[in-house]
This record gives sequence, structure tokens and C-alpha cells, in this order.
Amino acid sequence: MEYETPQFFHVMQYAADADGDTIDMVSGTPDWEPPAAIRDGLHAYADSDAEAFQYAPSDGLRPLREEIAARRNVDTDRVIVTNGTAEANYLGMATALDDDRGDAVVLIDPVYPYYAGKTTLLGGTPRLVAASRDGSLDREATCDAIGDDTAVVVLNTPNNPTGAVYDLDAIRAVADTAAEHDALVVVDEVYSHFDFAGDFESALTLDADNVVVTSGVSKSMAITGFRVGYAVLPPALVDAAKTRHMLVNISASRPAQQAVAEAYRETDPDYYADARDRLESRIESFTTALDAAGAEYTTPDGAFYVLARFDEFPGTMDNVKTLIDEAGVAGMPGATFGTAREEWVRFALVTPRVDEAAGRLADYFAD
Amino acid sequence: MEYETPQFFHVMQYAADADGDTIDMVSGTPDWEPPAAIRDGLHAYADSDAEAFQYAPSDGLRPLREEIAARRNVDTDRVIVTNGTAEANYLGMATALDDDRGDAVVLIDPVYPYYAGKTTLLGGTPRLVAASRDGSLDREATCDAIGDDTAVVVLNTPNNPTGAVYDLDAIRAVADTAAEHDALVVVDEVYSHFDFAGDFESALTLDADNVVVTSGVSKSMAITGFRVGYAVLPPALVDAAKTRHMLVNISASRPAQQAVAEAYRETDPDYYADARDRLESRIESFTTALDAAGAEYTTPDGAFYVLARFDEFPGTMDNVKTLIDEAGVAGMPGATFGTAREEWVRFALVTPRVDEAAGRLADYFAD
Repeated sequence: MEYETPQFFHVMQYAADADGDTIDMVSGTPDWEPPAAIRDGLHAYADSDAEAFQYAPSDGLRPLREEIAARRNVDTDRVIVTNGTAEANYLGMATALDDDRGDAVVLIDPVYPYYAGKTTLLGGTPRLVAASRDGSLDREATCDAIGDDTAVVVLNTPNNPTGAVYDLDAIRAVADTAAEHDALVVVDEVYSHFDFAGDFESALTLDADNVVVTSGVSKSMAITGFRVGYAVLPPALVDAAKTRHMLVNISASRPAQQAVAEAYRETDPDYYADARDRLESRIESFTTALDAAGAEYTTPDGAFYVLARFDEFPGTMDNVKTLIDEAGVAGMPGATFGTAREEWVRFALVTPRVDEAAGRLADYFAD
Repeated sequence: MEYETPQFFHVMQYAADADGDTIDMVSGTPDWEPPAAIRDGLHAYADSDAEAFQYAPSDGLRPLREEIAARRNVDTDRVIVTNGTAEANYLGMATALDDDRGDAVVLIDPVYPYYAGKTTLLGGTPRLVAASRDGSLDREATCDAIGDDTAVVVLNTPNNPTGAVYDLDAIRAVADTAAEHDALVVVDEVYSHFDFAGDFESALTLDADNVVVTSGVSKSMAITGFRVGYAVLPPALVDAAKTRHMLVNISASRPAQQAVAEAYRETDPDYYADARDRLESRIESFTTALDAAGAEYTTPDGAFYVLARFDEFPGTMDNVKTLIDEAGVAGMPGATFGTAREEWVRFALVTPRVDEAAGRLADYFAD
């Protein structure tokens, strides 16, 4: 499995070096303002007593863990604050692979490439299961892929890159099957605030003792650089994950934790609704242009990516470069996300120039 | 090997619950002000454009890496900014254990317990080598412990808990022997600013292709909660460490990185000299009291801990509790640091009440 970063960097570097003006739709970095309380919280923290600059509790500042626990409706003791959702996923997967559960890691294809990278890093063996054509979880195929050698199934809903929001019954079926084989399920819900149909239901509602839910505020608060995420673990797995977290990182960074705790308390629901509305409107104009371009796509129910397949223009690295050079729009080649969407291109709708990009694509493919 | 945190927490909790007033000399948390530029840097960052709140480069903000590289006199490409020195040590040890070098990890006893914890986490086998009586590196015994099954030797200079500053020739001998057996050496230099005799020489001056040097600003800038550290790797090992860093953490937290970059630029050398002078004066009064108490100790050449052995009062957990109850001074039992100093108690001199603690100990043992 190719490691994502070189691909990302490769495309971004190519776009940066291109002669013409290129609209960057490569990486999933929000282009809007963080909540005002993030800035206020940092200012307040900067004026704290020196004691507040020292070690936070390893599992996170208590007020932050309580805010998270209240929002997720779980016991605070189950929450570990991590260095972004990335570390939370690493902890969940490592906890599964540490025990004698086996070494197979079931991943859904198209797959966020870091899941595959973490699998290899942790000595696991990736087993890819194709998603349904619309990106939703193929319940039967996923359950069939789980065996006694399976350590963990990693799911992501709302999904990057397909935009699918998984049906809770499908997740339950996977969790039940995993339980029969003593496997864990890690469900990465980092895009849960970007749920356009209102259908998202957290895997935490299953209250299953083999399900780890991960998330973070990188996307919801537009602070990908802060590295504040969390894992909610079944009680029996908390200690193992805490030990690993402490030995690897001691804790997440305290200024960032403090600002996020403040933003949880002070941010109006309108902030999140505005971001959702902005993305919905971008999806609308972008998919309209895809129609004009004669492209195949599935309108995302969540997250902020659109996968598109253009007629006789497969989403290879070469064609992605052609789009940069000739249309002035940069996306990601589908092969970055496994084998199931090799013909597709992923566009991240986190630029104010979505309309313009849509126009460029419509023009280019109308030629 | 006992994991440190429960021990730490156990002692701190006991001290907090004690009836009388207790002077906390348990954990290594600086009690002085961070550089003013840390606060200024956070304020400036809080007012940045939203773009500055997004992903930092995985290996760290370029200006921060350049500040570190300039100070350590190495190429910037060799520097990875990590989530504290803890992650830097994890990366160094993991990089060694990832390849087919063997699984033995040579540690110096008394040992900072997290090194042993990381060893176990990474599937390695700790091999403890006793330090010399004065805490310095026992060159011969350490070299003898390195074999073909050795993946890595972990050194810490200035040393926690002994206060020894290792002789560069001894480190060179260990690095040479390790090289003969295809083993790495990780040298944790996080206390290098606290070098009272001015004898400290960085292992980077060896310019050895099997030596990883780790450090951070948690102690030097009194910001243990920020989690900003770094690893300086031999060029051939940089990519593997970067990949692991990215897959586990993506990057260190950006507000903290930005504030530290600012503090590197703006902080006068007097800031570090003042901290050093403060600690030297504390060591002076504390060891004077130890003399009065008839205790054995070695005056630390670096870091900010004193290991002491009291006559007929071994440093067991029970006796540490007795000191809390009867003398009002909390230290760490020697068994926390392996087997070589089980009879000793470690005192961290990071409290303004060192004189008072010294007086209490002198009084208690004079009885």
C-alpha cells in the first residue's frame, strides 16, 4: 500500500510548480475561521500562571474530557485526549493488535491511506473490502472478511473519500461479527459534524464492548494544526490505551487542549451549522458542474469530499497532472485510496473557489 | 519493570492526602517562569490568520527546525520536531527495533522508567547495566552488554536520576561498540541546559551514523505541558522516523511549536543561566542538609535531582511514606528507577521550598 504523504506532496508540489493558476482541492484542510473562542482561549492561556504551562494529566485536562464525555454521552473515564484523531486511531488499532487477536486488519476500500500505513507500522496485515458502489458499507462482504485472524475492523463515517454516512445497523452487524471473532472495531467519526442529511448516528450508541470510537476537532473547529482528538474506549481497554498514550506522547499539548475546552463551552451551534451549510452549497455547485462535465459521482451525505469519474479520463496521476495543467484544478488520484476507485479523482471542497473550479471542470470536459 | 506513572501518582496522591504540610519533590516539573517570549508567541499566534491554525509540516515548522539545527550545529534535514522528548525517544527506539538488529535494549540502571516502558511497548527486552557508584557511565560494563542481539542503547546525560554528566569518550566507546554490532545509540540530552560544571558535550559532536540525539524544551523553557521536543537522526534513519512520526501523530501541536520558535529567537542567555544558578544554589543548600542528616549522595553535575541514601532508612515506598508523614517531604522511592538504587530516595529540586525541605530532613534524621 502506498503511503499517502508522498502522493499528497507530489500532487501539491506539482500544482505549486504549475505555470498557470491552480485551484487546490487536494488536501482536507478547512478554509474557514475557527471559533472565536479558540483565539480567546489561547490568549487567556498565554496569561495563565506558570503552573498551567506544566504537564497536563496524561489522559487530558479534566474539563476537556468532561466536555467530550457530555457531548458523546459516555462516562468521562472512557475518554483519552490524544494528539489529534491520528493518534486516537493509532491507539485503537495498536490496542487491538497488541493482544493475541490475530494480525488481520479489515479496511474498507476506498480507504483513507493512513489506516493502511498504521496497519503496516503496527505489524498488521491489511485486508481490503470494497465499499458498495455508492460508498456505503457492504455489510455482507465486510462481515465475511472477518475471521479468527482478525484483530480489528477500521471504519470511517462520514467517510473520506466517498462521503457515505454508514447505516448504524450495518455497523452493528460488523461489530457483532467482530465480537464473535474477538476482534475490535475502530470507528473514526471525525467528520460527524458534516452530516448533510442528518442521518449520522454514532457507533457509541451501540454501547458495544469491542467498539472504539475516535474523533477530534481538527475539522469541526478548523484547527488541523492543533492536534486535539480523542478516543472513547470500552472500559476494559482504557488502561492499555492510556499506557501506550503515556509512553509515546505523555499527553496532548496543553495550550491546544485549553483552547479547545474553551471553544467547546463557548461556541454557538450556529458555528457548526454555518460550516455545514457552506459545504452543502459547495457540493451543490460542484456536482452541478460534474453533471455538465458528464461525470459519474455520488452526492456525499457527509464529510467534504467528492469522488468523480470522468468518461475516458481515469483518475491516474498522469491525468491528475493533466487537469492541473489544462483545467487549473488539482485533485487526488483515486489510486491513493486503494484499488476500488482507481479510475476516480477525489476533490476536497475546502476552498472558497469551488464554484470557479466547478466551472473550469465543466468547461474542460465540455470541449 | 514497574511502570513509572502509577508509582509517581501513588506517591503524589499519598502526599496530597497527608494530614500535614508536605513539600513535593516528586516530579520533575520546573517551578519557574517560562521565557516571556513563550507568552508573547502564543498571543501573536492566537491573532494569526486562520491558515496558521491548519496542519504544520509533519516534521515541524521550518523556522523552528532551523533554530534547533543552528543550536545543535546539524543539518536541518536531520531534525524532526516531536510531541515532546518522550516521542523523540519513542521514535529513536522504535526505529532501532523496527529493523532486524535484535530485540535487546541496553539501559543504564538507575534508569528513567519510561525507557523501560517504551522497550516493553515496542517488543524489546530491557537489559540493565549498573551505572558507576557516582552515576557515571560504566564504560566497560556497558560495552560488554552490547551484543549481536542488541538493537539500541539508551543513554541520558545529564542524567535523571543520578545527575551525572557523561564523559564524551565513554559515549564514543559505547557508540563504537554498538556500531560493531549494528546497534543504535539514543542519547537523551533534555537536561543539557542544566550543566553546572560546564562539562557537558553533546553526542552530536561524535557525528556517528548510529547515534540519535533527542531533546526538547520542556525543562529548559519550563513548559512541560507544551510537548515540544525533537530528534536529530543520522541521515539514513530520517525517513523511517518521519514515517512513524506522521502515522502516529501527524505533527506536534502548532501553537506550541510557534511559541517555542519565538522563544528560541527572543530569549536572552541570561534566562537559562538564571535557572542554572537557581538550581545550583538549591543543590548547595540541599546537600548541606544531607550532610547534616548523615546521608550518602553524589552532588549532581547536571539535571535537577539528588539521589540520597540515609543510614538504616532504605528508600522503600514505606519509608518514602514515612518521610511524608513524619518529615513533610515527598521524594521518589529508588526502586522506581530499577534495581541499582533501591536503597535511595530521589528528590527533585524544582520547588522554591528546597531550603525548608532540607531543614526538615536534617531535623528528622538528626533525631
